Amino acid sequence: MSVTNKHVRVGLIGAGRMGSFHATSLAQKVPGAVLAAVADPVPGAAQRLAEQLGAGKFYSEPQAMLDDPEIDAVLIATPARTHAELVAAAARAGKHVFCEKPMAITLEEADHAIAAARSAGVVLQVGFNRRFARGFAAALAAIAAGEIGTPQLIRSLTRDPSPLRDPSGIPPWTIYLETLIHDFDTLLHCNPGAKPVEVYAIADALVRPDFKDKGLLDTSVVTIRFDNGAIAVADASFEAVYGYDVRAEVFGSNGMFQMGNINVNNCVRYGAGGIAIETSRQDTDLLAEAYVAELSEFVRCAASGETPRATGEDARNALEIALACIASVRQGKPIQLRG
Amino acid sequence: MSVTNKHVRVGLIGAGRMGSFHATSLAQKVPGAVLAAVADPVPGAAQRLAEQLGAGKFYSEPQAMLDDPEIDAVLIATPARTHAELVAAAARAGKHVFCEKPMAITLEEADHAIAAARSAGVVLQVGFNRRFARGFAAALAAIAAGEIGTPQLIRSLTRDPSPLRDPSGIPPWTIYLETLIHDFDTLLHCNPGAKPVEVYAIADALVRPDFKDKGLLDTSVVTIRFDNGAIAVADASFEAVYGYDVRAEVFGSNGMFQMGNINVNNCVRYGAGGIAIETSRQDTDLLAEAYVAELSEFVRCAASGETPRATGEDARNALEIALACIASVRQGKPIQLRG
Amino acid sequence: MSVTNKHVRVGLIGAGRMGSFHATSLAQKVPGAVLAAVADPVPGAAQRLAEQLGAGKFYSEPQAMLDDPEIDAVLIATPARTHAELVAAAARAGKHVFCEKPMAITLEEADHAIAAARSAGVVLQVGFNRRFARGFAAALAAIAAGEIGTPQLIRSLTRDPSPLRDPSGIPPWTIYLETLIHDFDTLLHCNPGAKPVEVYAIADALVRPDFKDKGLLDTSVVTIRFDNGAIAVADASFEAVYGYDVRAEVFGSNGMFQMGNINVNNCVRYGAGGIAIETSRQDTDLLAEAYVAELSEFVRCAASGETPRATGEDARNALEIALACIASVRQGKPIQLRG
Amino acid sequence: MSVTNKHVRVGLIGAGRMGSFHATSLAQKVPGAVLAAVADPVPGAAQRLAEQLGAGKFYSEPQAMLDDPEIDAVLIATPARTHAELVAAAARAGKHVFCEKPMAITLEEADHAIAAARSAGVVLQVGFNRRFARGFAAALAAIAAGEIGTPQLIRSLTRDPSPLRDPSGIPPWTIYLETLIHDFDTLLHCNPGAKPVEVYAIADALVRPDFKDKGLLDTSVVTIRFDNGAIAVADASFEAVYGYDVRAEVFGSNGMFQMGNINVNNCVRYGAGGIAIETSRQDTDLLAEAYVAELSEFVRCAASGETPRATGEDARNALEIALACIASVRQGKPIQLRG
Repeated sequence: MSVTNKHVRVGLIGAGRMGSFHATSLAQKVPGAVLAAVADPVPGAAQRLAEQLGAGKFYSEPQAMLDDPEIDAVLIATPARTHAELVAAAARAGKHVFCEKPMAITLEEADHAIAAARSAGVVLQVGFNRRFARGFAAALAAIAAGEIGTPQLIRSLTRDPSPLRDPSGIPPWTIYLETLIHDFDTLLHCNPGAKPVEVYAIADALVRPDFKDKGLLDTSVVTIRFDNGAIAVADASFEAVYGYDVRAEVFGSNGMFQMGNINVNNCVRYGAGGIAIETSRQDTDLLAEAYVAELSEFVRCAASGETPRATGEDARNALEIALACIASVRQGKPIQLRG
Repeated sequence: MSVTNKHVRVGLIGAGRMGSFHATSLAQKVPGAVLAAVADPVPGAAQRLAEQLGAGKFYSEPQAMLDDPEIDAVLIATPARTHAELVAAAARAGKHVFCEKPMAITLEEADHAIAAARSAGVVLQVGFNRRFARGFAAALAAIAAGEIGTPQLIRSLTRDPSPLRDPSGIPPWTIYLETLIHDFDTLLHCNPGAKPVEVYAIADALVRPDFKDKGLLDTSVVTIRFDNGAIAVADASFEAVYGYDVRAEVFGSNGMFQMGNINVNNCVRYGAGGIAIETSRQDTDLLAEAYVAELSEFVRCAASGETPRATGEDARNALEIALACIASVRQGKPIQLRG
Repeated sequence: MSVTNKHVRVGLIGAGRMGSFHATSLAQKVPGAVLAAVADPVPGAAQRLAEQLGAGKFYSEPQAMLDDPEIDAVLIATPARTHAELVAAAARAGKHVFCEKPMAITLEEADHAIAAARSAGVVLQVGFNRRFARGFAAALAAIAAGEIGTPQLIRSLTRDPSPLRDPSGIPPWTIYLETLIHDFDTLLHCNPGAKPVEVYAIADALVRPDFKDKGLLDTSVVTIRFDNGAIAVADASFEAVYGYDVRAEVFGSNGMFQMGNINVNNCVRYGAGGIAIETSRQDTDLLAEAYVAELSEFVRCAASGETPRATGEDARNALEIALACIASVRQGKPIQLRG
Repeated sequence: MSVTNKHVRVGLIGAGRMGSFHATSLAQKVPGAVLAAVADPVPGAAQRLAEQLGAGKFYSEPQAMLDDPEIDAVLIATPARTHAELVAAAARAGKHVFCEKPMAITLEEADHAIAAARSAGVVLQVGFNRRFARGFAAALAAIAAGEIGTPQLIRSLTRDPSPLRDPSGIPPWTIYLETLIHDFDTLLHCNPGAKPVEVYAIADALVRPDFKDKGLLDTSVVTIRFDNGAIAVADASFEAVYGYDVRAEVFGSNGMFQMGNINVNNCVRYGAGGIAIETSRQDTDLLAEAYVAELSEFVRCAASGETPRATGEDARNALEIALACIASVRQGKPIQLRG
């Protein structure tokens, strides 16, 4: 790819699993992007990734990268609790921001980050990759166009195949703040224009009951009632033995859409045991195309000033449901929103 | 079929849509059965159906049929509120009983019917046809055998394509007592041995909002928590434009099963608009094989004295959840069971 | 089922695997039928089956049954070489005839059987069960109605899971006369009104090469050119490790149909190895509904005098292709028909 | 993407539909590639595309580009008859070559091109994109590893949705040389190590019979017999109203694989007419991932000197079958190969 002054120079903050994955996409698959720098406090991590991907610069502190005038945009892939402040700092430095979900873990932080991006006039996109998967994108567009009438019954789920070998490092409410937050975003976009009015969450530690007293919940079902009467359900599990499973279904007054396909390669095997179909073990495999598509949209928006599909407000809306889930589990009852 | 003294002579009580359908199956498709009589209070109805299907006798009152010693068994397909008393009367008369769901609409009635059948020593089977569909039967057997480990997340749904043109004759709680009661039975058998401990139901009149003030609810989502931690969700709608939809999914610690297939004939059409697959408009079409299979099992049990798969106790267990749903909707909160 | 004088009293000729299967269907699943007698030359075979299914009579010679005025119709399930003569004898005796495929193994025999049935005025139906499977029936009806325009490319296949443990009893040309004859019938009905003009068959002994010198061919591909330009291909194998496989596809100027589904129960398993779907090991399982449907049509036609869907002429048309295949394999070149 | 001296600088020859599509991939989606130049004899075409994609140079004559030492590799997307000579010229100039299929239209030309690449020591890859589609790649790898035992029955097809509005510019044997050549390549790789020994092709003008006398054949079925006994069938049509259709199936002694999926986005719509699934209208849409994957492999091989998956020899092998098809149609009989 020839590098011209129209290319968006992106700096990565956070060189962990997701950060490295996104950086590789930026370096190799996203048109119009240049991976220009990497920042990570772990000694050597930023340098290693920068050298491996041909990024010219590396930093141990994100602020040094934010001060660099040769950086146009940043991608934030640090632990969740640091996201909102980094978004605000990047916005103040005039950088366009792509932030992994959750963008914030309190509504105040979310409002602060959104306000910072707005007053700086920078693009703020959040990593709701699922909406960039072909099937989800096609269905959500058709639903928004009214093709199935008024949504009435909505389902979304996330089931992760990673066995919970060492759950000790997982923060207690991860299932809502990091996993189901994808589903909340999906459900909200499956019912465009409607507002959630009630949230009821049931959760348990069924995969690793031995971690229940440390507060780790690994299985949950969430029911959401909307102001247009639609009722949505999301579920999640931290251990799906059969592979990564991300699906949604929207039933409306005039039809239904199903989104998501856990078959990884559309190759069907027939053997002595019948028919067999392969699945994915990694979200980055199952949603490979979507991960590149969301970054491509970010880079396009950063170059043009357009508003991306997955905004800071979307992050706030999904977070509001996640926080209501936590309250619901704590109180053992449905939580009313906005009232 | 040659008629020998080993054939089970079945009398139908209730010659409406379902009664006529079952009677046709008994007369033409169920091995070992003879449709011997029809009873219905509507003038001429019993006679018409009896003549059409070659049944020798017809009655306007069920008790007259129950007094007939040449009847071995009865099939009850009358309105729901009459079921339990007819079951008890038939049992007292020494007839084996197949009763359409719901077998009762109060727990007391259910207990009464079960006790009557037990003390008379007759077979009592309830019309939970779904468990006789090939896919459901195979999956439930495998789940009971432990093939997917411990069930954790369970889903079941019923969506009926019949447009609600005249909902005025539908009793208010039909969605729980007559529709979702199928799903409650399915969910209970998807989690064998576990007991439901909490039920939360959300319901609305989304198809016919003009009937909401008459108490008719046409859309609902029910969440059930079990004593083994599993969480189940059922949903129903009275108007699915795309056809009859009956599906279930059980996610366990060691795998998942999906049951139900709304494709009516496994013939796939490819046209200018892409790929098209036909669905069913009638439960009697979608579940055609299952309707015959449940009656075949009933006739076999009536002849042999074996216990059928779908018992009076099963009817009571599903009814308990349906009643909890009604309480949950009335009170707007989760209902605890057995506590 | 009440037995009235309108019931068709059917006698079975040939109490082997298929005969016993059909007799069970007649006795237990086919409306309007009575299994009245069984004939088989194997000592005790007819009596055993008759007693097991409640048929009142049994014979060691078919002619005795044909002479019985209390028999309305016969079902012929003897070895293929005896079919045509039995059809003619039954017709002469005034019995309606259902004959397993192939109805004949020479065109002269086929003509003789057809003529005998016609001059006796009896119904003659041939066991092309596939056309009675729901998916095939729906697609063939739609194709006949012109829904996909003019057929251009047609495919049909039969793959049998039975391992060829003892192929020594299988006649040499079985793959054409008994297996692919189903596909030839399907292909002809996928292109209604058109005539085959050229047949080219390639065959080999790939499953059991050790039987090749005895003339047993277990794998074949047949290409057929029609007078409307359409080109059809059929293939067959005698050992499909993954289960019974019967499918067809018709591509036309205005669309395509796919028929056949090898998934036996529409229950999908998800396990550590991905997604798994069960198949059938027996045609009588895979096509269970179709086997009952063809007999139901036969009994209906025998009672009413209507012409069944699968006629003696259909048998002759499929046989003509099978014979051309044999000639093509012998001569190693395409065979022109009717010219 | 940062441009370093390790990037492969690719020049495009032929700025038509496919050339422009590939150039866009090279400029925007292929890691390690730089689109450095465009050559096309049509006035303005090379310049327009070069400017649009940021390629620094443009030429009206390919030789000028071949003389440029700053070009490492070329992608040939000109009309088929010019391919082989351009491959040889590029090889002589020391450029790595990616050539669209067919690489040659005579075996002599093919040998010449292969020899030129070999003696120059450059990478030569041919555009058999299908093998780079996920499903095909997974199945072919498993087949090569022996997972289904010995291949016995093989099928491949290509059906193109483009209506043949103006077939006047299409060369007569396009269906073999440009369309089915993909299937021949697939079939050869579905039966690794085996050699085709007989080819029989039937062809007709069913889509546009009015062009038949100009030699344009738009529908064909090809049967291929291999030296290991396997029998393969390919079919093609130039007008599939339902969308782009590319599939294959390999049946072996120990199982079967199906490859290809014409559903474009895994989003399923349920409406009043049943279930509907969208298809693709363009190969570049249906096989989007595969087109990028083949170029990524080319660039990787050009940088490393590895041998690509789709070689000049593969092009020759597929061409040999295409030429036998032409002979078979001309002579109206099966053609023996190598003998």
